Amino acid sequence: MARAQKDSAADLKQSALRSLKHKLKDQVSTDAEVCRLEGLDSARLVFQPSAVIFAKAPEDIGVVLRIANKHRVAVTVRGAGSSTTGAASPSNGGWALDLTQLNRIEVDKLSGMAHVQVGAVTEEINAEAEKAGWFYPPDPSSKKHSTIGGNIATNAGGLRGAKYGVTRDYVFGLEGFLPTGEFVRWGAPLRKYASGYNIRDLWIGSEGMLGVVTAATLKLIPKPEIRKTFLFGFSTERKALNAAQELIKKRLMPAVMEFMDRQTVSCALKRRADTGIAGNVLLDSVVSQFRRPPALLLIELDGTKVGVKAEAKALMEILDAKQTPCSKARNEREAEALWEVRRTCSQAMFQMGDTKLNEDVVVPVRSYHKLLDYTLELKKETGLATPTFGHAADGNFHVHLMFNHQDPKQRKNAERGVRLLMEKVVELGGAITGEHGIGLAKSPFMALQHSPEEIATMRKIKEVFDPNNILNPGKMFEPFEMWKHPRDYATRFPWDKKH
Amino acid sequence: MARAQKDSAADLKQSALRSLKHKLKDQVSTDAEVCRLEGLDSARLVFQPSAVIFAKAPEDIGVVLRIANKHRVAVTVRGAGSSTTGAASPSNGGWALDLTQLNRIEVDKLSGMAHVQVGAVTEEINAEAEKAGWFYPPDPSSKKHSTIGGNIATNAGGLRGAKYGVTRDYVFGLEGFLPTGEFVRWGAPLRKYASGYNIRDLWIGSEGMLGVVTAATLKLIPKPEIRKTFLFGFSTERKALNAAQELIKKRLMPAVMEFMDRQTVSCALKRRADTGIAGNVLLDSVVSQFRRPPALLLIELDGTKVGVKAEAKALMEILDAKQTPCSKARNEREAEALWEVRRTCSQAMFQMGDTKLNEDVVVPVRSYHKLLDYTLELKKETGLATPTFGHAADGNFHVHLMFNHQDPKQRKNAERGVRLLMEKVVELGGAITGEHGIGLAKSPFMALQHSPEEIATMRKIKEVFDPNNILNPGKMFEPFEMWKHPRDYATRFPWDKKH
Repeated sequence: MARAQKDSAADLKQSALRSLKHKLKDQVSTDAEVCRLEGLDSARLVFQPSAVIFAKAPEDIGVVLRIANKHRVAVTVRGAGSSTTGAASPSNGGWALDLTQLNRIEVDKLSGMAHVQVGAVTEEINAEAEKAGWFYPPDPSSKKHSTIGGNIATNAGGLRGAKYGVTRDYVFGLEGFLPTGEFVRWGAPLRKYASGYNIRDLWIGSEGMLGVVTAATLKLIPKPEIRKTFLFGFSTERKALNAAQELIKKRLMPAVMEFMDRQTVSCALKRRADTGIAGNVLLDSVVSQFRRPPALLLIELDGTKVGVKAEAKALMEILDAKQTPCSKARNEREAEALWEVRRTCSQAMFQMGDTKLNEDVVVPVRSYHKLLDYTLELKKETGLATPTFGHAADGNFHVHLMFNHQDPKQRKNAERGVRLLMEKVVELGGAITGEHGIGLAKSPFMALQHSPEEIATMRKIKEVFDPNNILNPGKMFEPFEMWKHPRDYATRFPWDKKH
Repeated sequence: MARAQKDSAADLKQSALRSLKHKLKDQVSTDAEVCRLEGLDSARLVFQPSAVIFAKAPEDIGVVLRIANKHRVAVTVRGAGSSTTGAASPSNGGWALDLTQLNRIEVDKLSGMAHVQVGAVTEEINAEAEKAGWFYPPDPSSKKHSTIGGNIATNAGGLRGAKYGVTRDYVFGLEGFLPTGEFVRWGAPLRKYASGYNIRDLWIGSEGMLGVVTAATLKLIPKPEIRKTFLFGFSTERKALNAAQELIKKRLMPAVMEFMDRQTVSCALKRRADTGIAGNVLLDSVVSQFRRPPALLLIELDGTKVGVKAEAKALMEILDAKQTPCSKARNEREAEALWEVRRTCSQAMFQMGDTKLNEDVVVPVRSYHKLLDYTLELKKETGLATPTFGHAADGNFHVHLMFNHQDPKQRKNAERGVRLLMEKVVELGGAITGEHGIGLAKSPFMALQHSPEEIATMRKIKEVFDPNNILNPGKMFEPFEMWKHPRDYATRFPWDKKH
């Protein structure tokens, strides 16, 4: 006891690391470059773990958690690291637990389910499903790289959310470990289940703070026979949003209905001019009908051949009446051409500032115009660019504040701007996050969205699962000032577009 | 303090009741007949509250809970009382809190949402939605009487579950009170939401034990243009289940695919003969092709006209190849004729015993045959009838054990039978409940489904929300012997079919 008291905290961490290395051998790395890379997620906040563990078997996770619990070491779990909120950043130090090697995918053709380990990449799951005639709809824009574990941790959304739902809607069962190291299952690989409290859905979207998922059973649906893509141009945001509202009111349910404001389209077109990308006839045929870069609606219908044909007719009737410039894709290659602005705009925004605050807010259908008007007010108010795009069928808009990190005035304006935006969104009956989650980025705004009683309940739930607060500590409940912390924009991620 | 210690528990309850009557006046009743009726749910277990509170405004619930908490009085919340597990029975005494008068329904036509209070009746919500061209799919068989609050508390399923999902899939936001009396909101009236821990889905299906919901925002979807109903007959269960599996494998997704075994069909036909119901040509044209009552598949397709036409063609191709006797409905009246056996079979089973254990188990698609074989083994083993029907697209079968309550041997066999069934279901990788929940009925089998660590986690969550264990105590975690407790089959519920 006397001895234990003499041990410094550092000694305890050393002894934890020794136990860990003893059990998991060369799966544990303390290499500086490995730690640097595994400390970074897509929010690019500079944090570093003291060790990285590469799990090879689900049991490894129980081992790590039991040691971490005993020695009170923080553990931050990560997949590909495509989180945009810093949720996968080890902001309190400790260990990073990398699950990317747990990546088995097994499609049950008869049942229409996929049994996957958490390190499996989202797009690869869908590719396996499609081989068997099935379909896994959730499509966060990081899907080529993001792991299903990260998707589950954040309840990732995506472009097809309004028609097909989000990650939560496709999870039947989870397996994993409590933060204290015990193996558990929540839900089951069954199409219906009503036994006990639903902890499966409490874990989904809990941002790696309540447990570590190792495997999931996912729901698959029949693969749509065909897709049909359309791009519509509008002289103002207001006209584009009117069109979106009209489609919702008429109960047309496109798989994708992406809105892009003029700031967004403008920088994507400028990037295209600057980098000399080859011409895009389908895009140009819409854009060229406007004197300035227009606002756009990218619409994709999917389903059976007959169904899509009927929907396409309805779509043209509803929007043609407004004499809207439009391009249609006749094949996959042409569809890709229509997607160009949407695919490049995120990167193109860095013309407007070296640092981005990407706010995935949600507003009710009736408040679309008010939100977009407000992004322009914010632009005036802060002097910063506020390019906005988003999923117009479910009200999940991505408002960006672009600024130069070295400029203290711009930094201050970004900080003020993001708070004003969040206040406005809540005032409009909306949500501070629709698909990214809280992580570090949204932590200062929790109290705008949730009452003290609600937050107190959440914190008590955290204590139930994680009495020693070792799992992803420092997130969600402790306000973090995103705009102040240094970021690493030099390290390239696989999902960064080449300049 | 000395005085408080002298107070008997009974005095404390009296003082609680006085506070309650002071605040809520004639909304509180201690009338014996009112208490008797409000103690009964569709499991018909004989329990009685000491008082009933009829909430008229959401705030009333906060009032009740604060008094109950202070005085440690059990509170059991109820809607229509159509629960089949005793979840709405005040098994620990205390007060019954009746929410049926909170029944406002408001359809937001533009957003495709319904804002409802918990006492709203499920079918009325859908009727309001359909008036506006929208559709609320969840359809528990009690939908004509059940309240949305009860549906949320049990995460009610229904016939259309495999295609459209269950109650959980249609809840955007909840409002209500913590057991300690504080007002909270979980989720939001928005199509996307990812802020904080997802307590909305923890509350859904928590059987009135973690909080009291007062209002919900529900997701609506475009109303299907048409429905088409088919009835197929098979000489054995095996052939009917083969057909169901074939449809699933071919990824045909009917809105309804109800399986009925020969015991079920047999008693429905006998009831029809006994009661002299008018002839049913469409039903007879299937049944008459068999020497004995066949097993049936009732299939309903829905969607757009062109979509249903294409699906109907595929359906006939897949099943006609097997030369299956079949009736098709050409209109609503004919569809109702095809539904006859399914609608009357539940009641008809009482020919086989005066008491029913209704077990809504789930098994994986590949285990359908094994489950049905086992119901016949159980029949032999226990000497009791085991009529079984269910939702063949999601594996949610309702296995019934019929017995005479006064016969101690039959009672003992029912007890043994239900345990054997539950063990078999779990052995087959299934679930002890797919849509009814645990309540009292399934409480002895929780440990078959969940590990000690999982149950311990659930109990700790209960403590977080309800530190004094006042809300629906005695359910889920405390094994209750359903087959021993007296039942009241004399009282008629609105949903009882006339004999």
